[in-house]
Amino acid sequence: MTIKLGIIGAGRIGRVHADTLRTRVPGAEALAIADIYEASARSAAADFGIPDYSVDPAEIIHSGDIEAVVICSSTDTHCHFISEAARAGKNIFCEKPIAFDLAEIDAALAAVVEAGVQLQIGFNRRFDSNHARIKSAIDGGEIGQPHTLTIISRDPAPPPIDYIKVSGGLMMDMMIHDFDMCRFLLGEVEEIFALADVMVDPAIGEAGDIDTAKVMLRFENGAIGTIENSRQAVYGYDQRVEVFGSGGAVSSGNWHPNAVTVSDAASVRRDLPLNFFMERYMDSYAAEMMAFVEAIRAGETVPVVGNDGRAPVLMAMAGMRSIAEKRPVRLDEVEA
Amino acid sequence: MTIKLGIIGAGRIGRVHADTLRTRVPGAEALAIADIYEASARSAAADFGIPDYSVDPAEIIHSGDIEAVVICSSTDTHCHFISEAARAGKNIFCEKPIAFDLAEIDAALAAVVEAGVQLQIGFNRRFDSNHARIKSAIDGGEIGQPHTLTIISRDPAPPPIDYIKVSGGLMMDMMIHDFDMCRFLLGEVEEIFALADVMVDPAIGEAGDIDTAKVMLRFENGAIGTIENSRQAVYGYDQRVEVFGSGGAVSSGNWHPNAVTVSDAASVRRDLPLNFFMERYMDSYAAEMMAFVEAIRAGETVPVVGNDGRAPVLMAMAGMRSIAEKRPVRLDEVEA
Amino acid sequence: MTIKLGIIGAGRIGRVHADTLRTRVPGAEALAIADIYEASARSAAADFGIPDYSVDPAEIIHSGDIEAVVICSSTDTHCHFISEAARAGKNIFCEKPIAFDLAEIDAALAAVVEAGVQLQIGFNRRFDSNHARIKSAIDGGEIGQPHTLTIISRDPAPPPIDYIKVSGGLMMDMMIHDFDMCRFLLGEVEEIFALADVMVDPAIGEAGDIDTAKVMLRFENGAIGTIENSRQAVYGYDQRVEVFGSGGAVSSGNWHPNAVTVSDAASVRRDLPLNFFMERYMDSYAAEMMAFVEAIRAGETVPVVGNDGRAPVLMAMAGMRSIAEKRPVRLDEVEA
Amino acid sequence: MTIKLGIIGAGRIGRVHADTLRTRVPGAEALAIADIYEASARSAAADFGIPDYSVDPAEIIHSGDIEAVVICSSTDTHCHFISEAARAGKNIFCEKPIAFDLAEIDAALAAVVEAGVQLQIGFNRRFDSNHARIKSAIDGGEIGQPHTLTIISRDPAPPPIDYIKVSGGLMMDMMIHDFDMCRFLLGEVEEIFALADVMVDPAIGEAGDIDTAKVMLRFENGAIGTIENSRQAVYGYDQRVEVFGSGGAVSSGNWHPNAVTVSDAASVRRDLPLNFFMERYMDSYAAEMMAFVEAIRAGETVPVVGNDGRAPVLMAMAGMRSIAEKRPVRLDEVEA
Repeated sequence: MTIKLGIIGAGRIGRVHADTLRTRVPGAEALAIADIYEASARSAAADFGIPDYSVDPAEIIHSGDIEAVVICSSTDTHCHFISEAARAGKNIFCEKPIAFDLAEIDAALAAVVEAGVQLQIGFNRRFDSNHARIKSAIDGGEIGQPHTLTIISRDPAPPPIDYIKVSGGLMMDMMIHDFDMCRFLLGEVEEIFALADVMVDPAIGEAGDIDTAKVMLRFENGAIGTIENSRQAVYGYDQRVEVFGSGGAVSSGNWHPNAVTVSDAASVRRDLPLNFFMERYMDSYAAEMMAFVEAIRAGETVPVVGNDGRAPVLMAMAGMRSIAEKRPVRLDEVEA
Repeated sequence: MTIKLGIIGAGRIGRVHADTLRTRVPGAEALAIADIYEASARSAAADFGIPDYSVDPAEIIHSGDIEAVVICSSTDTHCHFISEAARAGKNIFCEKPIAFDLAEIDAALAAVVEAGVQLQIGFNRRFDSNHARIKSAIDGGEIGQPHTLTIISRDPAPPPIDYIKVSGGLMMDMMIHDFDMCRFLLGEVEEIFALADVMVDPAIGEAGDIDTAKVMLRFENGAIGTIENSRQAVYGYDQRVEVFGSGGAVSSGNWHPNAVTVSDAASVRRDLPLNFFMERYMDSYAAEMMAFVEAIRAGETVPVVGNDGRAPVLMAMAGMRSIAEKRPVRLDEVEA
Repeated sequence: MTIKLGIIGAGRIGRVHADTLRTRVPGAEALAIADIYEASARSAAADFGIPDYSVDPAEIIHSGDIEAVVICSSTDTHCHFISEAARAGKNIFCEKPIAFDLAEIDAALAAVVEAGVQLQIGFNRRFDSNHARIKSAIDGGEIGQPHTLTIISRDPAPPPIDYIKVSGGLMMDMMIHDFDMCRFLLGEVEEIFALADVMVDPAIGEAGDIDTAKVMLRFENGAIGTIENSRQAVYGYDQRVEVFGSGGAVSSGNWHPNAVTVSDAASVRRDLPLNFFMERYMDSYAAEMMAFVEAIRAGETVPVVGNDGRAPVLMAMAGMRSIAEKRPVRLDEVEA
Repeated sequence: MTIKLGIIGAGRIGRVHADTLRTRVPGAEALAIADIYEASARSAAADFGIPDYSVDPAEIIHSGDIEAVVICSSTDTHCHFISEAARAGKNIFCEKPIAFDLAEIDAALAAVVEAGVQLQIGFNRRFDSNHARIKSAIDGGEIGQPHTLTIISRDPAPPPIDYIKVSGGLMMDMMIHDFDMCRFLLGEVEEIFALADVMVDPAIGEAGDIDTAKVMLRFENGAIGTIENSRQAVYGYDQRVEVFGSGGAVSSGNWHPNAVTVSDAASVRRDLPLNFFMERYMDSYAAEMMAFVEAIRAGETVPVVGNDGRAPVLMAMAGMRSIAEKRPVRLDEVEA
């Protein structure tokens, strides 16, 4: 049985999923791709052997042949398409973040529940071999009871200011992955304290955002965590996680383009780490889509569900409030 | 312009190329695959979206639509298919080793020259990111004038004895990759001394082969090298190269499935390296095929030519004679 | 010119300094050692070739031959001996922390200033090759403007509960080193937020202390830092620092007893890190004492002065208040 | 019981042992040091607190108070002093190599046996934490039955040409340590093949020596090894050993002055390894002397005996003959 999918959004991440579906996901076939820019839809269709394209996402959502939709459009459209697709009885894969507004998210999640369809959120990092290994170390008891978590997550360079303005801010756009990682590894968080500033580029501050932040979290299970984000690490994409527990510690390093060391009269050195997520996390995009397709085919629950999309948004809100109010903020304050 | 290819041989490596051609090589299309076992040909065609299959390689070689053939059949058939394909005017990609016999190789290479077609030999490791980086360090002067070379190349487990019997022996089957690496990195070798023995499995000795060897090489440029091969490293595939020179050293480590370290009361440890060539070198198979297709499309010389297939066979012969005669053997002795 | 010293306190750290003075510090000579336990004083004198011993520290402080005193007695005696030694005109090396009380510290520092003698505080980690290299990377501009600091500092096992009770608590006894490291690397801190708990041993909680903590700090220069402490890392002493800035990052790893890797069918592993400070930081004890002696001999200012002993105590107080009041605490609140 | 020692030779290594005996070897006391240069003897005595000095080694050898002599004079005097000290009933520690001549060595060893004294050879690397850990991995069965050995040993810079001329050549002076390491780790060698050349400095060739060499060895137990030596690694002292066996591999890396990594826009790098043996192997000098003193005090056999000094000389001779005759040379050919 092959699952027939339609893709909404032919931007960078839409193209990643289109490519992955064609080359790396067994049992799946993309039948159509839609984008408000016809040229984008057409070229994606051509590049990835997708039979049909459109400028109207509704054509995909309401196509009789399509069983599942992959939502890769801009964040402000996610909830609308989720609800519409749910009502059309489609299973749904949606990119992160779901939305910036809890009420909007809750409505979309309710539509999913009501329709009895499945929704997977695109937190691809859970499927990365490093993060998955850390998770398995915890679950397998290799480090005992977890006590602390340390995430360092730095981008190689900030996005364009125009993107920053619509991104929801560093915590919604960038740290949201790390908030998800916290939940993936150690469960629910109850309180957040954040310090943040503009250190990389004043233009980011002028756009109302921050570019550097540290966040401290207390988990419901008592563990304590910290997350660090920077929009600019000149040496490349820096993605590390460490969990420390009663029986030991598990930590991940960065991936480099090669495992080669050069020693000369000046230093012993390696080439820089893989530069950004398209290099670093490509396998995880394939893995999350495989997991989605397999779950749908097997009639099982998808691995990253609707609330996994909602909870990190709540955490980002708590983090932003902590910065604004200079105090630790409980998630139930934001929820209320 | 898309290059149309036919694949001869639907065994493990034939399937690798079929998969790669479909998913990772732009500008290429496999039209047919042949194998003497019809079931193999048929299932490969189905698995990798190849329109046609056959039990007769000649159908591929003489197909009017096919511009290039990929020879993945058993070693004893390579030269025959190379000559036939050359005479049919096809460009050729052939797996290593070309053959175990110099006269046979020379006849095939002559057919290629006469027909004015191109022949690329499947020394995929040249396209691996580690080996390519070592090469660029040398060529870019990062380590000055090379003085020594050290290759350690260990398989995770020996192949079946039936395979060993037809493999041409460790030096033709396994060390041939390392002989090619020597030439790729430091140029021609003039003399070889080998010590070898059966340490892993007596059955390998009974089959007339060795399973553990160290080889010392003197290069024409004066550099000195060593290669170590073992058929069995219990911790997995071990593939390391170091070149030392007047200005420094460049060396490669192994790739692991993740970059995660676990520290507990017993040790600080990583998971085992990638287990074997299908995991370790998969990207290099795609890269060599891309390079082949690009060269053919651009009308340029392919990157690993006929003599690159012949020279390592000569080196293997010298190595085997060194073991037999317990002395260093010059390549020109074997050539003569 | 050889500096003549007297040592007050023949416990573990007193013996370290006695040994170091004898074997590794040129231009220094310990003339006497005092301890309230005569047996301790006598055996230390014998073990380290010190001519004289006493049960009365005053004999050392008022000895006409002794030019400098090394205070290694219990924390509650530090300020008294500092003041007395200052009034006796001796230069002073005193172990950390100076005291748990700011008024007491201020009185002792005033005595030092009034007497015109020098006081060096025993923050040995500044003299460790890792920490010194991180400092030089920052000062040398290797990482540009510092943005963030991450310190992970974990002990292999908690001290005895009896010690915990008089230790001043984790922040005064253990994290004080990390507070000093913050100031050493990035300058003054203005605000601290701490989360802490008892995760290792309930008896520590019953003794009124915590065993696991994360602290977030805002520096006066705008940088943001975190410190993590645990009283028990089962894999040994874990001592790492990372500073990230506009031009890069500098980070330190742990030291292991050997640089050997064992690969077998289960893992690729190293032996555990050096177990505790007596192994890990021994060279730094020698280096700080050399620096003290050299500064005294040269008539120059010692490298870790009185306020370097006071400021981390203030930070520990802010950290403890943050835990108690569940909010970020400014250092000037504590100072007031 | 304290062992009273005399040191013959106040050059670089004599001073190392004098310092070590004073500061790090319990139960030992150097009573006198002799050197043909009075100034050297006098300053060493002053620097290391040795009560007596002399220009006449015989005074040390025949002193009634001295129970053991440490021979650190030039190689050509070793055998003479060994024999004389043995006849005087002294236990002996002698630096490597014993001598360049087998007959001379045999006479000295016979004198030792006849006198019933003990002789320890200064192969300090056996006492290094890396090499000792590799040995323990082998002995403890961590890697199963050893199959191969790879030693890479490179100096940071060649010694002065005047030293080269009297050094006995690279194999006697430098590779002798690696020959000893072979025997320490895997036992006796039966055959050696060497390739060597002058690649670093033509003046070394004019002095009749080589500066770069690779050696292949067959051990009596069937294992195969290689050693690589270069007189000049621009990145510093490079000292690595790997033993591979049926159950895994054990390998050592270099020691660096710190465990710090700097990442910037160009690379991820560490500072160069420790530069030379005085930094890299200092602890091993202390450990070998402690072992000598402890064995003497306990009446036990010293850990590196006379034949351990002789055998590597035989190996160096075989290596040199292999270079001259361009063939593998059996040790029993040289012995004969």
